[in-house]
Amino acid sequence: MLDPRPVGYVLGLLTIVMGVAMLFPMALDLADGNRNWQAFAVSAAVAIALGGSVALASANFDLRQMSVREAFLLTTATWVVLPMVGAIPLMLGEPDVSITDAYFEAVSGMTTTGATVFPGLDALPRGVNLWRGILQWLGGLGIVIVALLFLPVMRVGGMQFFRSEGFDTLGKVLPRTIDISRGLIQAYVVLTLACAATYGALGMNWYEATVHALTTLSTGGFSTTDRSFAAFSGLAEYAAVIFMILASVPFIRFIQFANGNRLALLHDVQVRAFLRWMAYAILVLTLWQVFALDYPLEPAFRESAFNLVTLWTGTGYASVDVTAWGSFAFAILFVAGLIGGCTASTGCSVKIFRYLVLKEALISQLRLLVSPRTVTTPRLDGRQIDRDVIDSVMTFTVLFFLTLGVVAVALSLTGMATQTAITAAWTSVANIGPAFGPEVGPTGAMDAFPTSAKWIMIFAMLIGRLELLAVFVLFTAAFWRG
Amino acid sequence: MLDPRPVGYVLGLLTIVMGVAMLFPMALDLADGNRNWQAFAVSAAVAIALGGSVALASANFDLRQMSVREAFLLTTATWVVLPMVGAIPLMLGEPDVSITDAYFEAVSGMTTTGATVFPGLDALPRGVNLWRGILQWLGGLGIVIVALLFLPVMRVGGMQFFRSEGFDTLGKVLPRTIDISRGLIQAYVVLTLACAATYGALGMNWYEATVHALTTLSTGGFSTTDRSFAAFSGLAEYAAVIFMILASVPFIRFIQFANGNRLALLHDVQVRAFLRWMAYAILVLTLWQVFALDYPLEPAFRESAFNLVTLWTGTGYASVDVTAWGSFAFAILFVAGLIGGCTASTGCSVKIFRYLVLKEALISQLRLLVSPRTVTTPRLDGRQIDRDVIDSVMTFTVLFFLTLGVVAVALSLTGMATQTAITAAWTSVANIGPAFGPEVGPTGAMDAFPTSAKWIMIFAMLIGRLELLAVFVLFTAAFWRG
Ligand SMILES: [K+]
Ligand SMILES: [K+]
Repeated sequence: MLDPRPVGYVLGLLTIVMGVAMLFPMALDLADGNRNWQAFAVSAAVAIALGGSVALASANFDLRQMSVREAFLLTTATWVVLPMVGAIPLMLGEPDVSITDAYFEAVSGMTTTGATVFPGLDALPRGVNLWRGILQWLGGLGIVIVALLFLPVMRVGGMQFFRSEGFDTLGKVLPRTIDISRGLIQAYVVLTLACAATYGALGMNWYEATVHALTTLSTGGFSTTDRSFAAFSGLAEYAAVIFMILASVPFIRFIQFANGNRLALLHDVQVRAFLRWMAYAILVLTLWQVFALDYPLEPAFRESAFNLVTLWTGTGYASVDVTAWGSFAFAILFVAGLIGGCTASTGCSVKIFRYLVLKEALISQLRLLVSPRTVTTPRLDGRQIDRDVIDSVMTFTVLFFLTLGVVAVALSLTGMATQTAITAAWTSVANIGPAFGPEVGPTGAMDAFPTSAKWIMIFAMLIGRLELLAVFVLFTAAFWRG
Repeated sequence: MLDPRPVGYVLGLLTIVMGVAMLFPMALDLADGNRNWQAFAVSAAVAIALGGSVALASANFDLRQMSVREAFLLTTATWVVLPMVGAIPLMLGEPDVSITDAYFEAVSGMTTTGATVFPGLDALPRGVNLWRGILQWLGGLGIVIVALLFLPVMRVGGMQFFRSEGFDTLGKVLPRTIDISRGLIQAYVVLTLACAATYGALGMNWYEATVHALTTLSTGGFSTTDRSFAAFSGLAEYAAVIFMILASVPFIRFIQFANGNRLALLHDVQVRAFLRWMAYAILVLTLWQVFALDYPLEPAFRESAFNLVTLWTGTGYASVDVTAWGSFAFAILFVAGLIGGCTASTGCSVKIFRYLVLKEALISQLRLLVSPRTVTTPRLDGRQIDRDVIDSVMTFTVLFFLTLGVVAVALSLTGMATQTAITAAWTSVANIGPAFGPEVGPTGAMDAFPTSAKWIMIFAMLIGRLELLAVFVLFTAAFWRG
């Protein structure tokens, strides 16, 4: 029997957190003399009252008894329900949009996708943009915690490879959850503050610096302006590149770094592959722009690095019209988005780890074809990759591309152009941010998409963010029976 | 040590076969009073002399000693070398094209891809179009034999699942090769004759009927006219649907049928899935055309069935401009091309069998997530699917889509538009036929593609046709060392 109480209890507490977080945009709008502060005040009251009563009603149980199935349910429920709470102020106050648009924006925020249905960001109350940034920041933090604590136990997508670094069962998770979570939150806060300070030093005002720091560290990509990073060309782009990369490495390494292991980051096999592949891609893109498009070297290098990193890490800021770089450059950027960052970061998509496992598995398969009698065990980082992990990784990857295809077909069924359907599927399933095509507005906003397309994207963003299997498992009969 | 003699011997014999086959187009052009017969006469002489001397020089060995590694080498060498022979008359006589175009056309023929670089097919000597048909027919026959006899032993892409139906080692293959091959050739010839007779009865002249029968049964898709099947609208399209489907089912079933097992075809789990999925897709496409595009029912059903089946089976005939059906219909057709026919047919792409294995593997992975302690073994057609088969199938599928992506990126690097690059990659790797985009000519011909793009496509058609791994394995150091 599934016990609804742990799910209700945690959801209730998180709803309270959402309500408390609304006090920041409320304060900003109040200070700005913008009466939109009332929307946040009412929403905060609703969230805290609602969350409080659900938490109290569900509190009568032992959290350490949570089963793996309840963890699955909780994970999906969190990302389905909290955006409902996050959408309330967007409906009560400005931009005063439909349920679909408000929920789309909140899901896009909390899944750190960053696709927006709000054109005219510059004209919104500053509190609204701060709230959008906070949604992404909270969503990013949430996913790091889930990836580090839950997914390895849930054995989703090969994450059980990291079990030995963490925990074996949920029973052992909880005692250390608070420890690890505290370390994670510290690292996340410190990096966000450093990012905001850097952005501030490079010319953003404190509001722009704060919101962009929130959406950089969460690889979310929401901006305070329709121009996105085109408004902050130059050094700020280099700074963003560095912080987007930091947001895409395993957060556990920062804790190890803080604990004195200064080389933890550089010894990580994922981080090394991530940086190496990215360096090659930036080199190729820069050469392409310099030699094929005759761009000068510095902007070519800067825009290559910025746009590649922002799409690769799934942050999704824009600084130039990348489609003007031609189909080759676009193909590189498209593929980069399908790689993604490292596991247990705020990054999305398939992720470096899985490609490393696939590479080792492919090599050992080829070896097997040549000499069927030689048994070779694929290894990663000196450790043997279990059968189980390879199976999960392969299943995940196949399912990822299958989902991408199904979502693209579903989107094209709503009447969208092929290019829009494909890039919108890509941006949703891999939680990237921008889409390209005739239906996308001049500011990159997707408000003109059909309502059905928005709901397909909402579903796709959720399953993409929750590593597909964590959601799909809820659709099996065995889950509810077992 | 790799022994080059078995490879040389078989290649020599096959070159002689090619030379003998050139006598047909020679005779046709001679009867037409077209002096292009001389190109075929000279080419035939060259092929027979060359093949004869290589075969004689390599004959001094025991064919039963052929190792698996030599089988790999032979398979790739066959599809690389024979198109060189097949290209000779296209350079010596009409259409008198460059080495690139002649080899492209011959590879596109023998891999049964059917992409053409010849605009103006109607103006070519009839012998040239007959030769193009023969190239596809021979290529289709070759692949059925390789798929049935070699791939299971080579353990490529999960084909070892079919080993128990066939043979365990190459040593056991050869004694039965002649038996099985004879049965295959009989079935292939009978079906081709039946197809030609049907086409003839439905309005084609005997030359059109013959060439189209050769390219239908091989799921090749070359036509005698730039209009392709638009020139034969109506009942001939229904006939083509039936014969394209017959060309995409496991050929071993026809042998069993001839041996008295009348239900062999209908009991095949691949065939059942193939027909079921295809029926759904035709239904959806027809409904889309009737309700969304307001087309009348009969042509909507006929054009849906014809265009879906021609792309799904990888035949690649054209009858209407399918891009005019909108992005949803186009997405369905694009996906259909990535499914493909059944194993051990002339069909290409990923194939039904692999999707069935993937489906079972996914289901058992999901079950495992829910109840980690329950061990479930995926089964297909009542038989257990071995670990080994699942690994191979997953590796193949991942590699297939990876190759598709890499080829699309490489093609876009030559400066092609994204749409052209993607559809040309799709048509090459899955051996389908048509591509769509600004660089494709009005007749569907790809003569205007950059030379570099043509060579990328040649490489892609070859590895796609030879199930990727059979070629990739040649690029491993272990293969040459072992
Ligand atoms: K994003
Ligand atoms: K074809």
